Amino acid sequence: MESPKRKPGCPLQLVTLNMDAKKCEVNEDALGRLEKRLKEMGAKMVAIVSVMGAFRTGKSFLLDLFLRFLKWEADHPEEAAAARSESQPARGGNEDFPLPAWITTAGANIEGASEDDEGFRFKGGMDACTEGIWVWSEPFLRQLNGQEVAVLLMDTQGAWDSNMTKEQSATVFGLTAVLSSKQIYNINMQIQEDKVENLAYFMRFAQAELNKAASEMEREGKPLSREEIDRPFQSLDFLVRDWRHFRDDWTVEQCMEQMQQHLSRHVNPQKMVENSTAEALHAMFKRLQCFCLPHPGLIIEKDTWTGKVADINRDFIRFMDLYVRDVFTTGLSTKNILGSELSTMSFPHVLRNFVDAFHDAAPAAMSFTQAMTNCTVLLAKEAAMKSFIKKMDEEASRNPRGMKPEEFTSISRTVTQQVEDDYKSMTIFGSDDTRKDTWTEICKNLDNLRQRYEEDNARRLEKALVAFANISLIGLALFLLDRISDWTCDWWSQTCTDLSKLMLLAYVLIFGYVGVQAYLALHDRGRVAAAMAGGELWKEMVRLMGLYGELLQEMELKEVPGWLKEQALNLYNQATGGAASSDSKNKKD
Amino acid sequence: MESPKRKPGCPLQLVTLNMDAKKCEVNEDALGRLEKRLKEMGAKMVAIVSVMGAFRTGKSFLLDLFLRFLKWEADHPEEAAAARSESQPARGGNEDFPLPAWITTAGANIEGASEDDEGFRFKGGMDACTEGIWVWSEPFLRQLNGQEVAVLLMDTQGAWDSNMTKEQSATVFGLTAVLSSKQIYNINMQIQEDKVENLAYFMRFAQAELNKAASEMEREGKPLSREEIDRPFQSLDFLVRDWRHFRDDWTVEQCMEQMQQHLSRHVNPQKMVENSTAEALHAMFKRLQCFCLPHPGLIIEKDTWTGKVADINRDFIRFMDLYVRDVFTTGLSTKNILGSELSTMSFPHVLRNFVDAFHDAAPAAMSFTQAMTNCTVLLAKEAAMKSFIKKMDEEASRNPRGMKPEEFTSISRTVTQQVEDDYKSMTIFGSDDTRKDTWTEICKNLDNLRQRYEEDNARRLEKALVAFANISLIGLALFLLDRISDWTCDWWSQTCTDLSKLMLLAYVLIFGYVGVQAYLALHDRGRVAAAMAGGELWKEMVRLMGLYGELLQEMELKEVPGWLKEQALNLYNQATGGAASSDSKNKKD
Repeated sequence: MESPKRKPGCPLQLVTLNMDAKKCEVNEDALGRLEKRLKEMGAKMVAIVSVMGAFRTGKSFLLDLFLRFLKWEADHPEEAAAARSESQPARGGNEDFPLPAWITTAGANIEGASEDDEGFRFKGGMDACTEGIWVWSEPFLRQLNGQEVAVLLMDTQGAWDSNMTKEQSATVFGLTAVLSSKQIYNINMQIQEDKVENLAYFMRFAQAELNKAASEMEREGKPLSREEIDRPFQSLDFLVRDWRHFRDDWTVEQCMEQMQQHLSRHVNPQKMVENSTAEALHAMFKRLQCFCLPHPGLIIEKDTWTGKVADINRDFIRFMDLYVRDVFTTGLSTKNILGSELSTMSFPHVLRNFVDAFHDAAPAAMSFTQAMTNCTVLLAKEAAMKSFIKKMDEEASRNPRGMKPEEFTSISRTVTQQVEDDYKSMTIFGSDDTRKDTWTEICKNLDNLRQRYEEDNARRLEKALVAFANISLIGLALFLLDRISDWTCDWWSQTCTDLSKLMLLAYVLIFGYVGVQAYLALHDRGRVAAAMAGGELWKEMVRLMGLYGELLQEMELKEVPGWLKEQALNLYNQATGGAASSDSKNKKD
Repeated sequence: MESPKRKPGCPLQLVTLNMDAKKCEVNEDALGRLEKRLKEMGAKMVAIVSVMGAFRTGKSFLLDLFLRFLKWEADHPEEAAAARSESQPARGGNEDFPLPAWITTAGANIEGASEDDEGFRFKGGMDACTEGIWVWSEPFLRQLNGQEVAVLLMDTQGAWDSNMTKEQSATVFGLTAVLSSKQIYNINMQIQEDKVENLAYFMRFAQAELNKAASEMEREGKPLSREEIDRPFQSLDFLVRDWRHFRDDWTVEQCMEQMQQHLSRHVNPQKMVENSTAEALHAMFKRLQCFCLPHPGLIIEKDTWTGKVADINRDFIRFMDLYVRDVFTTGLSTKNILGSELSTMSFPHVLRNFVDAFHDAAPAAMSFTQAMTNCTVLLAKEAAMKSFIKKMDEEASRNPRGMKPEEFTSISRTVTQQVEDDYKSMTIFGSDDTRKDTWTEICKNLDNLRQRYEEDNARRLEKALVAFANISLIGLALFLLDRISDWTCDWWSQTCTDLSKLMLLAYVLIFGYVGVQAYLALHDRGRVAAAMAGGELWKEMVRLMGLYGELLQEMELKEVPGWLKEQALNLYNQATGGAASSDSKNKKD
């Protein structure tokens, strides 16, 4: 007997794969139909339960069992309430677990085994059935924390089959992560690090998208709390199928205890040797759980199985019964995206937005080996550049006045050789070609750098005389003073004449000194280099004059005597070992 | 009955994990023992069969069956030869597959289930048993292509358990790849893309090490063929356990056909949407196969199973029998590393070398998400730098004479803002912190770049007058000529006086023009800038003078009239539209 509220429903393909454009698309027909049903039901909020995992690991079979449970609870609310408090025969005893009402009421065969639209289609066979993202057309109205919420069941395409591009995988699984209140990661046999990492990869991808959306919101003046950004997802269950390690004589509690241990062994950062991925998962999800289901029996796996409920292993049904109650009763909450609850109104909008966003971001999706190849190549490039820069800087600081061009060429060649030797001992993923191509690219970059260093070196060479700018300025000043005194006082003052002679001696010495230095520095580089260096010396002198001029302007002229006195006092203090300053301090006291 | 040649043997741990140093180490005791046995046996060449895969997927169980087979064949050579031609009841009929002699002769229980050293220890339980790399202490002498070869059986630690660091995983699995003639990748249920990629990751790692070794050899003058470098590994089997898809009524041939299909669906580049990883695998291995084994029965999985042969599913044994013959008879060859066959002498040396090499390379090992994070971060950095450089170069080329300092500041600020906006829309893996840290690092790099552009800009500003160097040179020359004529001929020649006046006019005009330009360019930048620009102008003039001087020296002075004539002819030709040149051509005809 169906309740008048509930329509039978069918699976709707919400997101389809467009193989030509290598992208995913929203199926607007299906979304429209779902939107209409959400409006009719009248619930304001949405909760989404999704199942993801590798292809052909029984995801749709699981969803069909979920459907049986949800339909039965919707149709038989009183019996459902009664069933919750019913006690079951303990595990490990001789009594078989009785088939619960929810699994038998809808018929002797599980829906998905047949070709009609009664359930999510699953087959035991070799071809994966689910493509893109599917959703059950009929939301289920349930009470969560006293609120009436529309619960949606979502099925995603099997991961790591060979018929999706990286872009599409990133979209399908990223979208699932962004939209789900509860995400069930269906895995076979046991939690393994590779599986955890593959999951974390898609979660990271989804998180990157949410980060972008968050920074968009911040720019629009809607700041979010750190918690909302750093912990963007709600609940994740590792659902281990075909679990082999429940002993026949254990109670349910002992089995639960083992599930906890299994989770903590593989996803507890404290217990792991390499814990960055586990830490990241814990940081991203508000709730992380593990549930193990035993093997439902080898007959279920055959192509020829018709979906007969009676064939399913009773221990499997016992744990399934526990799990389904946990998922839809205690473990579920409304969907929350970036700080706001997902409503029946906003759901279609959010879905469309994120499909677009993931498509734009998809080129960043790559395989593990691609990522490693890119990563090692980029790191090698960075290391080569850094090492070249470091070594050339060292050489340059060893020759502050510049190296001769031929010397520069030989040094830069040696450094390049060293960088190449270092490069050869670096680990580069990929074929020999990748290795060679990377080196070619590095060479191109090094050439650019070498050019820059060559220019710097040339400039340094030109500045060979710049260090003499101060002393030349003094010489120039003395020369000018001498000229002035020739005209103004030499003809009447003996002091002036004497000073004049002194100055003459000083500036002749200075110019002689600078001249000799210039000759030493430049005699083997030709006249042009000498003239260029002269030009640079002139520029430096002009710059210094400007500087001193500004300095003088800044100090009021009146302050000059005070400043001079201060300098003299400092000198005196230095000479007497600070006795004067301590004296003045004492006086103040 | 054991053959006198063969000792019982036990598992030896060749490579151990050192958890403190996060590295792997060669167990010298075990290696010494193995080396001694290899010498005693007298075979020259080695073939190594190794099994790798996730933890607790029945690798050791498989190896124990291999051991039974190898021991039996060694002890019963005649019966083994006879068994090869024996026919078996066809699959799909009513007759059960009989237990082959090799599986029953050694006893009713498989060795590894007990605690003694009779086999590779396996347990059905939750704790993984194998750590590091193990090898069976007794090599088996077998005839491969008419050559007597020592066959070693190797067991590797389960991958993707949480008790190995990335460094150790890279070493254990890389080493297995480098050393194996035949590598058996033991996987559960089906080939999946994630499994293929995880495998390819370790193979890439091993390949990178071999590439390094190859380039070392090349440097030492032992060049290798491209084939040896690009296809470094020999044989890889995907061994799918618990395969569900053999129909009960199929023949063995139909099952084999299905295995082929399964392999090609997931590892054939032509059939896959994303084929780079599959292509890489095909490029790396000389031989790539798939073999599927059905489920050996749920009882085998229980902790309580004692290893009773009779419990094992007969269909499993049928395919096991086929597989074991393929592995050790048709599918095996001697180990070849980088062009040379591995001998019993070189084996210990090669093992030690590669353990060291992998340890040195290990820091490059990282998890998928780490790799993606690094990759996106490095790419974002590169993109930001490139975009900044591109935009600043555009701005600079728009202002060839430099921008005013305040203009430069505002432009560089705008460009930085644009780069930041672009950065925000980039996909970065990792938390919000990663995003912010990356931006901080980019900012540091941008600051360095900005400084460089600022210096370039300042230099460009200083060169404001450099464009006038040529015309100033002419002015200077005219001025000098005028002076010379003042002293030499103005007092006796009217022509000289007239020319002098003309030159005076010309150089006054020139200096006036340059002066106005200088004023326009520099009037709002102060006297210092003007003097600096004067210095640069001087330098450029000197440079040009040097250049012209060299040019003149290069041309013999005698050539000058000829050169002038040529230039004049060119001018004439241009004026007459090439008529002269065609005339001269006609004359030649």
